Amino acid sequence: MVELNTNTGIVETKHFTFANPPTGLLLESGKSLGPITLAYETYGKLNLQKSNAVLVLHALSGDAHAAGFHNGDKHPGWWDPLIGPEKGIDTNKYFVICSNVIGGCRGSTGPSSTNPRTNRPYGIDFPIVTIGDMVNAQKHLIDHLGIEKLLTVTGGSMGGMQVLEWMVTYPDRIHSAIPIATTMKHTPQQIAFNEVGRQSIMADPNWKRGDYYGSSTPTKGLAVARMVGHITYMSDVSMAEKFGRRFKTSKEPSKFGAEFEVEGYLQYRGNNFVKRFDANSYLYITKAIDYFNILNGKKLSDIFKGLDAKVLVIAFKSDWLYPPYQSREITKACKLAGVDATYCEVNSTYGHDAFLLEVEEETHLIAHFLRRISNHN
Amino acid sequence: MVELNTNTGIVETKHFTFANPPTGLLLESGKSLGPITLAYETYGKLNLQKSNAVLVLHALSGDAHAAGFHNGDKHPGWWDPLIGPEKGIDTNKYFVICSNVIGGCRGSTGPSSTNPRTNRPYGIDFPIVTIGDMVNAQKHLIDHLGIEKLLTVTGGSMGGMQVLEWMVTYPDRIHSAIPIATTMKHTPQQIAFNEVGRQSIMADPNWKRGDYYGSSTPTKGLAVARMVGHITYMSDVSMAEKFGRRFKTSKEPSKFGAEFEVEGYLQYRGNNFVKRFDANSYLYITKAIDYFNILNGKKLSDIFKGLDAKVLVIAFKSDWLYPPYQSREITKACKLAGVDATYCEVNSTYGHDAFLLEVEEETHLIAHFLRRISNHN
Repeated sequence: MVELNTNTGIVETKHFTFANPPTGLLLESGKSLGPITLAYETYGKLNLQKSNAVLVLHALSGDAHAAGFHNGDKHPGWWDPLIGPEKGIDTNKYFVICSNVIGGCRGSTGPSSTNPRTNRPYGIDFPIVTIGDMVNAQKHLIDHLGIEKLLTVTGGSMGGMQVLEWMVTYPDRIHSAIPIATTMKHTPQQIAFNEVGRQSIMADPNWKRGDYYGSSTPTKGLAVARMVGHITYMSDVSMAEKFGRRFKTSKEPSKFGAEFEVEGYLQYRGNNFVKRFDANSYLYITKAIDYFNILNGKKLSDIFKGLDAKVLVIAFKSDWLYPPYQSREITKACKLAGVDATYCEVNSTYGHDAFLLEVEEETHLIAHFLRRISNHN
Repeated sequence: MVELNTNTGIVETKHFTFANPPTGLLLESGKSLGPITLAYETYGKLNLQKSNAVLVLHALSGDAHAAGFHNGDKHPGWWDPLIGPEKGIDTNKYFVICSNVIGGCRGSTGPSSTNPRTNRPYGIDFPIVTIGDMVNAQKHLIDHLGIEKLLTVTGGSMGGMQVLEWMVTYPDRIHSAIPIATTMKHTPQQIAFNEVGRQSIMADPNWKRGDYYGSSTPTKGLAVARMVGHITYMSDVSMAEKFGRRFKTSKEPSKFGAEFEVEGYLQYRGNNFVKRFDANSYLYITKAIDYFNILNGKKLSDIFKGLDAKVLVIAFKSDWLYPPYQSREITKACKLAGVDATYCEVNSTYGHDAFLLEVEEETHLIAHFLRRISNHN
């Protein structure tokens, strides 16, 4: 019996620095930012023709560590079930790049980075960044890696917004695209959930208008922000299946302490999050998401005009944060522009989290799509 | 031309005090509470047979002031469009009582009331109260008013939970019931939204384990809790119609200040709420809602067994906080118990707020239902 080796093994995050001052990178706001460091990881080998590169983009709280294990870690990267040898994005065939975003706090330049003009952390002196700025920075990374045209670019949620931005801004640099569980623009309800998170952070007295580095950090506010997020990532049904109305086995003795399992879960997730995420980055990244509007006054039929790439749009039935109608709208915009687009709605109860959890369906859809694209290039 | 007078005019909140110590009112937790004051209002006249009384019950942040104007106020009570002469609940025909709840902060005994044992506000020494306790207290008020049997009991959201509690605990005291936009038990998603609100309050350093009376109050935490609430009261569609992605006309100069209209609206509602609501009451009342489970281990067919009252269940299509499936479940439980129940699903885009806004539909449904009940009694 032959056992397949599907393990990516030990990986390391790399860093690429560019856009040195005084020029820097011109942002959509008109301000410039530099130097910029992007954290990224790669899995598999770039072929000689440099034609097998897949760019993977992450969601709000994700990072460059999509697959394999960091030395000493128990848990693999956030999309490990989908990326690796013989997996949905097969690293025996494809060279996978996962790039972090500017504005973040996971190795790339963001509000917690040192401002070269003051030698202190930027805090909220960091300029506003957009999804477009994030993608412009990634384009520099792809140039640096010597890749003329990506085989595909994919990602879910905010990662999907970056995919749409690649489709619009760098159509000549991609053979195909797979936006997952995402939207062409944030609705007021989606903005509202992000705004609650921001208000919660800014209500924390430790926030100090973003100038908290080196002292107590606004962990309580950030934890509440994350709790709100988690509710929107799950569904009514998945919460009912996971928690029901069960009480925790050990009730906290304090009044109004976590009592129901769902309360304990949210607190646990909130308290864990603050150990790995910077509150200011949460403000900047949610703002970038809220500003995102690929339509930007254009007609639906004009958005993807001239795009010569195949597109696979994936949505999940129970996703109420980025409901399927928003993915159908992306597909419609593609069709109106004559783009070869396929829409797949996965019948999942996991809510928005499905893009991380419905591995079997995604493996099937993405592996098949990539085979089709590879055969044409 | 005859002009109908549909104005309730100037009204006043009354207070009823009972359950004096040492006995007090025995709560479901086993603890006792006393003395208890209930704030309530009445509109219309109780007839000689005392057979025309309608009990109206309010939602989480509501109060006894359902109709008419308080002296000097610009805005009428929270259900004024539905209660008054010639209105849906016609006060020319019916004697309407609106009762506040224990645990609240709008004139009834709650955590901000004076603890007779310490002569200081209870704070979180106030005992945990349930929807059952709220209804038991209301029963004392109805006894006090000399009403043997209510013509109907109605309310939306948490008011609807109290209606269900009346149906189960005091079936002989009601001729009919109208639960609106409510549920027989809180799901983990519903608990989760409340828990976010509680965590936000308790994360505010001004909360001081509930002992903040006479000093700064946890307004920031309470405002964020209210913001989360407001998102769940509206719908994706109603937010899109009301705000779209429009920016505020005057953008706040501060970074991360309200910029989109929806952000400004949520902040406005949050900041207004803290002027009239006590943070500890928010903790107690949301807990009462989360504990609510009228099933409590019973079979669906047994819950309303023996209830000899007509029931009108109303739900709203776009209500995702208390989705229609939960109202259909109430109707099913009634039918299984042989109760005469009608289910009406109003085709509204207002989300949960529809129970306050879909006045025309509710007027039609409730006025017709009340005529039918009155003719049979």
